[in-house]
Amino acid sequence: MTPDETTEPDAQYLDDFVSGAVYEYGPVTVSEAEILEFARKYDPQPIHIEPGWARTGPFGGLIASGWHTTALTMRLLVDNYLPAAASLGSPGIDELRWVRPVRPGDALSVRVTVLETRPSRSKPDRGIIRSQIEVLDAHGQVVMTLVALNLLLRRPAGL
Amino acid sequence: MTPDETTEPDAQYLDDFVSGAVYEYGPVTVSEAEILEFARKYDPQPIHIEPGWARTGPFGGLIASGWHTTALTMRLLVDNYLPAAASLGSPGIDELRWVRPVRPGDALSVRVTVLETRPSRSKPDRGIIRSQIEVLDAHGQVVMTLVALNLLLRRPAGL
Repeated sequence: MTPDETTEPDAQYLDDFVSGAVYEYGPVTVSEAEILEFARKYDPQPIHIEPGWARTGPFGGLIASGWHTTALTMRLLVDNYLPAAASLGSPGIDELRWVRPVRPGDALSVRVTVLETRPSRSKPDRGIIRSQIEVLDAHGQVVMTLVALNLLLRRPAGL
Repeated sequence: MTPDETTEPDAQYLDDFVSGAVYEYGPVTVSEAEILEFARKYDPQPIHIEPGWARTGPFGGLIASGWHTTALTMRLLVDNYLPAAASLGSPGIDELRWVRPVRPGDALSVRVTVLETRPSRSKPDRGIIRSQIEVLDAHGQVVMTLVALNLLLRRPAGL
Protein backbone atom coordinates (compact mmCIF):
# COMPACT_ATOMS: atom_id res chain seq x y z
CA MET A 1 0.00 0.00 0.00
CA THR A 2 1.48 3.36 -0.99
CA PRO A 3 0.92 6.48 1.13
CA ASP A 4 -1.59 7.72 -1.44
CA GLU A 5 -3.77 4.72 -0.80
CA THR A 6 -4.07 5.48 2.90
CA THR A 7 -4.85 9.15 2.41
CA GLU A 8 -8.39 10.21 3.23
CA PRO A 9 -10.06 11.59 0.14
CA ASP A 10 -11.25 14.79 1.86
CA ALA A 11 -13.73 14.89 -0.94
CA GLN A 12 -16.76 17.07 -0.47
CA TYR A 13 -18.32 16.96 -3.94
CA LEU A 14 -18.42 14.76 -7.04
CA ASP A 15 -15.74 16.94 -8.63
CA ASP A 16 -13.25 16.01 -5.89
CA PHE A 17 -13.10 12.34 -6.90
CA VAL A 18 -10.52 11.23 -9.47
CA SER A 19 -10.70 8.02 -11.53
CA GLY A 20 -8.14 5.51 -10.35
CA ALA A 21 -7.86 6.87 -6.80
CA VAL A 22 -7.73 4.06 -4.22
CA TYR A 23 -8.76 4.28 -0.56
CA GLU A 24 -8.81 1.74 2.25
CA TYR A 25 -10.97 1.77 5.39
CA GLY A 26 -11.40 -0.48 8.40
CA PRO A 27 -10.96 -3.02 9.73
CA VAL A 28 -14.21 -3.89 11.45
CA THR A 29 -14.36 -7.21 13.30
CA VAL A 30 -17.51 -9.32 13.12
CA SER A 31 -18.42 -11.49 16.10
CA GLU A 32 -20.34 -14.77 16.22
CA ALA A 33 -23.06 -13.06 18.28
CA GLU A 34 -23.56 -10.42 15.57
CA ILE A 35 -23.59 -13.04 12.80
CA LEU A 36 -26.29 -14.97 14.66
CA GLU A 37 -28.34 -11.87 15.46
CA PHE A 38 -28.35 -10.57 11.88
CA ALA A 39 -29.10 -13.97 10.35
CA ARG A 40 -31.87 -14.91 12.78
CA LYS A 41 -33.69 -11.77 11.63
CA TYR A 42 -32.93 -11.68 7.92
CA ASP A 43 -31.31 -14.88 6.66
CA PRO A 44 -32.16 -17.81 8.95
CA GLN A 45 -30.40 -20.59 7.07
CA PRO A 46 -28.60 -23.24 9.18
CA ILE A 47 -25.18 -22.25 7.82
CA HIS A 48 -25.71 -18.79 9.41
CA ILE A 49 -27.63 -19.59 12.62
CA GLU A 50 -26.77 -23.15 13.76
CA PRO A 51 -23.11 -23.39 14.82
CA GLY A 52 -23.37 -27.14 15.52
CA TRP A 53 -24.84 -27.94 12.11
CA ALA A 54 -22.45 -25.53 10.42
CA ARG A 55 -19.38 -27.34 11.84
CA THR A 56 -20.31 -30.40 9.79
CA GLY A 57 -21.46 -28.31 6.79
CA PRO A 58 -19.70 -27.30 3.57
CA PHE A 59 -17.60 -24.51 5.16
CA GLY A 60 -16.61 -26.36 8.34
CA GLY A 61 -18.20 -23.70 10.52
CA LEU A 62 -20.62 -20.83 10.83
CA ILE A 63 -20.43 -18.14 8.14
CA ALA A 64 -22.01 -14.68 7.96
CA SER A 65 -24.97 -13.94 5.73
CA GLY A 66 -23.74 -12.26 2.57
CA TRP A 67 -26.22 -9.48 3.35
CA HIS A 68 -24.54 -8.96 6.69
CA THR A 69 -21.26 -8.42 4.83
CA THR A 70 -22.90 -5.83 2.56
CA ALA A 71 -24.33 -4.05 5.64
CA LEU A 72 -20.92 -3.95 7.38
CA THR A 73 -19.39 -2.65 4.15
CA MET A 74 -22.00 0.10 3.91
CA ARG A 75 -21.15 1.25 7.42
CA LEU A 76 -17.46 1.63 6.47
CA LEU A 77 -18.42 3.59 3.35
CA VAL A 78 -20.82 5.89 5.20
CA ASP A 79 -18.27 6.58 7.94
CA ASN A 80 -15.32 7.18 5.60
CA TYR A 81 -16.01 7.48 1.89
CA LEU A 82 -19.31 9.12 1.04
CA PRO A 83 -19.26 12.90 1.66
CA ALA A 84 -22.26 13.33 3.96
CA ALA A 85 -23.40 16.77 2.80
CA ALA A 86 -23.23 15.88 -0.91
CA SER A 87 -24.60 12.33 -0.84
CA LEU A 88 -27.99 11.96 -2.53
CA GLY A 89 -28.37 8.21 -2.25
CA SER A 90 -27.70 5.33 -4.58
CA PRO A 91 -29.55 4.14 -7.67
CA GLY A 92 -28.08 0.66 -7.16
CA ILE A 93 -25.26 -1.86 -7.21
CA ASP A 94 -23.82 -4.06 -9.94
CA GLU A 95 -21.95 -7.36 -9.97
CA LEU A 96 -22.15 -8.14 -6.26
CA ARG A 97 -20.10 -11.31 -5.67
CA TRP A 98 -19.56 -13.27 -2.47
CA VAL A 99 -16.15 -14.76 -3.12
CA ARG A 100 -15.09 -16.29 0.21
CA PRO A 101 -16.96 -17.04 3.44
CA VAL A 102 -16.84 -14.52 6.31
CA ARG A 103 -16.39 -16.22 9.69
CA PRO A 104 -16.74 -15.15 13.33
CA GLY A 105 -13.73 -13.04 14.36
CA ASP A 106 -12.86 -11.97 10.80
CA ALA A 107 -11.55 -8.41 10.52
CA LEU A 108 -12.90 -6.85 7.32
CA SER A 109 -11.45 -3.91 5.44
CA VAL A 110 -12.79 -2.14 2.39
CA ARG A 111 -10.70 -1.09 -0.60
CA VAL A 112 -12.43 1.46 -2.84
CA THR A 113 -11.25 2.34 -6.35
CA VAL A 114 -12.90 5.28 -8.11
CA LEU A 115 -13.90 3.97 -11.55
CA GLU A 116 -15.64 6.99 -13.03
CA THR A 117 -17.46 10.21 -12.24
CA ARG A 118 -20.14 11.38 -14.64
CA PRO A 119 -22.05 14.65 -14.37
CA SER A 120 -25.78 14.36 -14.92
CA ARG A 121 -27.03 15.72 -18.24
CA SER A 122 -30.48 16.60 -16.95
CA LYS A 123 -29.55 17.92 -13.48
CA PRO A 124 -26.37 19.99 -13.62
CA ASP A 125 -26.00 20.20 -9.84
CA ARG A 126 -25.23 16.48 -9.48
CA GLY A 127 -23.70 13.38 -11.02
CA ILE A 128 -22.91 9.69 -10.59
CA ILE A 129 -19.76 8.17 -9.14
CA ARG A 130 -19.01 4.51 -9.91
CA SER A 131 -16.72 2.79 -7.40
CA GLN A 132 -15.20 -0.68 -7.35
CA ILE A 133 -15.58 -2.03 -3.81
CA GLU A 134 -13.45 -4.93 -2.56
CA VAL A 135 -13.87 -6.33 0.94
CA LEU A 136 -10.74 -7.99 2.33
CA ASP A 137 -10.10 -10.23 5.32
CA ALA A 138 -7.11 -9.86 7.67
CA HIS A 139 -4.97 -11.90 5.24
CA GLY A 140 -5.75 -9.52 2.38
CA GLN A 141 -7.95 -12.11 0.69
CA VAL A 142 -10.96 -10.74 -1.16
CA VAL A 143 -14.22 -11.95 0.41
CA MET A 144 -16.69 -9.77 -1.52
CA THR A 145 -16.72 -7.41 -4.50
CA LEU A 146 -19.27 -5.06 -5.97
CA VAL A 147 -19.60 -1.96 -8.13
CA ALA A 148 -21.39 0.88 -6.31
CA LEU A 149 -23.28 3.71 -7.95
CA ASN A 150 -23.77 6.87 -5.88
CA LEU A 151 -25.41 10.20 -6.65
CA LEU A 152 -23.36 13.14 -5.39
CA LEU A 153 -23.79 16.89 -5.60
CA ARG A 154 -21.28 18.80 -7.74
CA ARG A 155 -19.27 21.65 -6.27
CA PRO A 156 -21.41 24.78 -6.43
CA ALA A 157 -20.05 27.64 -8.58
CA GLY A 158 -17.78 29.92 -6.59
CA LEU A 159 -16.83 27.26 -3.99
CA MET B 1 -52.41 -12.57 -10.78
CA THR B 2 -53.37 -15.97 -12.17
CA PRO B 3 -53.74 -19.01 -9.89
CA ASP B 4 -50.37 -20.28 -11.15
CA GLU B 5 -48.69 -17.21 -9.76
CA THR B 6 -49.96 -17.84 -6.26
CA THR B 7 -49.01 -21.53 -6.24
CA GLU B 8 -46.14 -22.47 -3.98
CA PRO B 9 -43.35 -23.93 -6.05
CA ASP B 10 -42.98 -27.06 -3.87
CA ALA B 11 -39.59 -27.23 -5.47
CA GLN B 12 -37.00 -29.37 -3.76
CA TYR B 13 -34.21 -29.35 -6.34
CA LEU B 14 -32.89 -27.26 -9.23
CA ASP B 15 -34.74 -29.53 -11.66
CA ASP B 16 -38.10 -28.52 -10.16
CA PHE B 17 -37.82 -24.89 -11.27
CA VAL B 18 -39.17 -23.89 -14.70
CA SER B 19 -38.17 -20.76 -16.62
CA GLY B 20 -40.98 -18.23 -16.64
CA ALA B 21 -42.64 -19.45 -13.45
CA VAL B 22 -43.75 -16.56 -11.22
CA TYR B 23 -44.25 -16.62 -7.45
CA GLU B 24 -45.28 -13.99 -4.93
CA TYR B 25 -44.53 -13.88 -1.20
CA GLY B 26 -45.31 -11.54 1.64
CA PRO B 27 -46.21 -8.96 2.60
CA VAL B 28 -43.90 -7.98 5.43
CA THR B 29 -44.45 -4.61 7.08
CA VAL B 30 -41.48 -2.48 8.07
CA SER B 31 -41.80 -0.19 11.10
CA GLU B 32 -40.05 3.09 11.83
CA ALA B 33 -38.38 1.48 14.86
CA GLU B 34 -36.87 -1.25 12.65
CA ILE B 35 -35.74 1.27 10.03
CA LEU B 36 -33.97 3.28 12.73
CA GLU B 37 -32.42 0.22 14.39
CA PHE B 38 -31.01 -1.20 11.15
CA ALA B 39 -29.70 2.14 9.91
CA ARG B 40 -28.10 3.19 13.20
CA LYS B 41 -26.00 0.03 12.97
CA TYR B 42 -25.25 -0.20 9.28
CA ASP B 43 -26.22 2.94 7.36
CA PRO B 44 -26.30 5.96 9.70
CA GLN B 45 -27.16 8.66 7.18
CA PRO B 46 -29.61 11.36 8.31
CA ILE B 47 -32.23 10.31 5.75
CA HIS B 48 -32.39 6.91 7.54
CA ILE B 49 -31.89 7.84 11.21
CA GLU B 50 -33.10 11.42 11.79
CA PRO B 51 -36.88 11.69 11.31
CA GLY B 52 -36.87 15.45 11.93
CA TRP B 53 -34.18 16.14 9.36
CA ALA B 54 -35.74 13.66 6.94
CA ARG B 55 -39.08 15.49 6.98
CA THR B 56 -37.41 18.49 5.36
CA GLY B 57 -35.20 16.29 3.12
CA PRO B 58 -35.56 15.16 -0.50
CA PHE B 59 -38.12 12.41 0.24
CA GLY B 60 -40.28 14.37 2.71
CA GLY B 61 -39.70 11.80 5.44
CA LEU B 62 -37.62 8.96 6.78
CA ILE B 63 -36.77 6.17 4.32
CA ALA B 64 -35.27 2.71 4.90
CA SER B 65 -31.68 1.94 4.04
CA GLY B 66 -31.57 0.11 0.73
CA TRP B 67 -29.61 -2.63 2.52
CA HIS B 68 -32.49 -3.03 4.94
CA THR B 69 -34.79 -3.65 1.97
CA THR B 70 -32.41 -6.32 0.62
CA ALA B 71 -32.31 -7.97 4.07
CA LEU B 72 -36.13 -8.04 4.34
CA THR B 73 -36.28 -9.45 0.81
CA MET B 74 -33.81 -12.20 1.71
CA ARG B 75 -35.98 -13.21 4.65
CA LEU B 76 -38.99 -13.66 2.34
CA LEU B 77 -36.90 -15.74 -0.08
CA VAL B 78 -35.43 -17.95 2.66
CA ASP B 79 -38.86 -18.56 4.18
CA ASN B 80 -40.65 -19.26 0.90
CA TYR B 81 -38.57 -19.69 -2.23
CA LEU B 82 -35.21 -21.34 -1.66
CA PRO B 83 -35.52 -25.09 -0.97
CA ALA B 84 -33.66 -25.43 2.34
CA ALA B 85 -32.20 -28.89 1.84
CA ALA B 86 -30.87 -28.15 -1.67
CA SER B 87 -29.62 -24.58 -1.19
CA LEU B 88 -25.83 -24.25 -1.41
CA GLY B 89 -25.59 -20.47 -1.14
CA SER B 90 -25.26 -17.68 -3.65
CA PRO B 91 -22.34 -16.58 -5.80
CA GLY B 92 -23.87 -13.11 -6.03
CA ILE B 93 -26.41 -10.61 -7.28
CA ASP B 94 -26.65 -8.53 -10.44
CA GLU B 95 -28.34 -5.24 -11.31
CA LEU B 96 -29.60 -4.32 -7.86
CA ARG B 97 -31.70 -1.14 -8.23
CA TRP B 98 -33.44 0.93 -5.58
CA VAL B 99 -36.31 2.37 -7.59
CA ARG B 100 -38.57 4.01 -4.99
CA PRO B 101 -38.11 4.89 -1.31
CA VAL B 102 -39.37 2.47 1.37
CA ARG B 103 -41.10 4.29 4.23
CA PRO B 104 -42.23 3.36 7.75
CA GLY B 105 -45.39 1.25 7.58
CA ASP B 106 -44.82 0.05 4.02
CA ALA B 107 -45.94 -3.53 3.37
CA LEU B 108 -43.46 -5.18 1.02
CA SER B 109 -44.08 -8.21 -1.17
CA VAL B 110 -41.65 -10.07 -3.39
CA ARG B 111 -42.41 -11.26 -6.92
CA VAL B 112 -39.96 -13.86 -8.20
CA THR B 113 -39.66 -14.89 -11.86
CA VAL B 114 -37.47 -17.87 -12.73
CA LEU B 115 -35.19 -16.68 -15.54
CA GLU B 116 -33.02 -19.73 -16.11
CA THR B 117 -31.69 -22.91 -14.55
CA ARG B 118 -28.28 -24.14 -15.68
CA PRO B 119 -26.67 -27.40 -14.55
CA SER B 120 -23.01 -27.09 -13.58
CA ARG B 121 -20.55 -28.58 -16.09
CA SER B 122 -17.88 -29.37 -13.52
CA LYS B 123 -20.12 -30.58 -10.65
CA PRO B 124 -23.02 -32.67 -11.97
CA ASP B 125 -24.84 -32.75 -8.63
CA ARG B 126 -25.67 -29.02 -8.74
CA GLY B 127 -26.46 -25.99 -10.86
CA ILE B 128 -27.33 -22.29 -10.90
CA ILE B 129 -30.77 -20.74 -10.87
CA ARG B 130 -31.15 -17.11 -12.00
CA SER B 131 -34.22 -15.33 -10.66
CA GLN B 132 -35.62 -11.87 -11.32
CA ILE B 133 -36.66 -10.38 -7.98
CA GLU B 134 -39.08 -7.45 -7.77
CA VAL B 135 -40.06 -5.92 -4.45
CA LEU B 136 -43.46 -4.25 -4.45
CA ASP B 137 -45.22 -1.91 -2.04
CA ALA B 138 -48.88 -2.21 -1.04
CA HIS B 139 -49.90 -0.28 -4.18
CA GLY B 140 -48.08 -2.75 -6.43
CA GLN B 141 -45.36 -0.21 -7.21
CA VAL B 142 -41.88 -1.62 -7.67
CA VAL B 143 -39.49 -0.32 -4.99
CA MET B 144 -36.47 -2.57 -5.71
CA THR B 145 -35.30 -5.02 -8.36
CA LEU B 146 -32.37 -7.41 -8.62
CA VAL B 147 -31.26 -10.58 -10.37
CA ALA B 148 -30.36 -13.33 -7.89
CA LEU B 149 -27.98 -16.21 -8.55
CA ASN B 150 -28.37 -19.31 -6.35
CA LEU B 151 -26.59 -22.63 -6.29
CA LEU B 152 -28.98 -25.55 -5.83
CA LEU B 153 -28.51 -29.31 -5.74
CA ARG B 154 -29.99 -31.31 -8.60
CA ARG B 155 -32.43 -34.12 -7.93
CA PRO B 156 -30.42 -37.25 -7.15
CA ALA B 157 -30.84 -40.19 -9.52
CA GLY B 158 -33.74 -42.41 -8.48
CA LEU B 159 -35.61 -39.68 -6.59
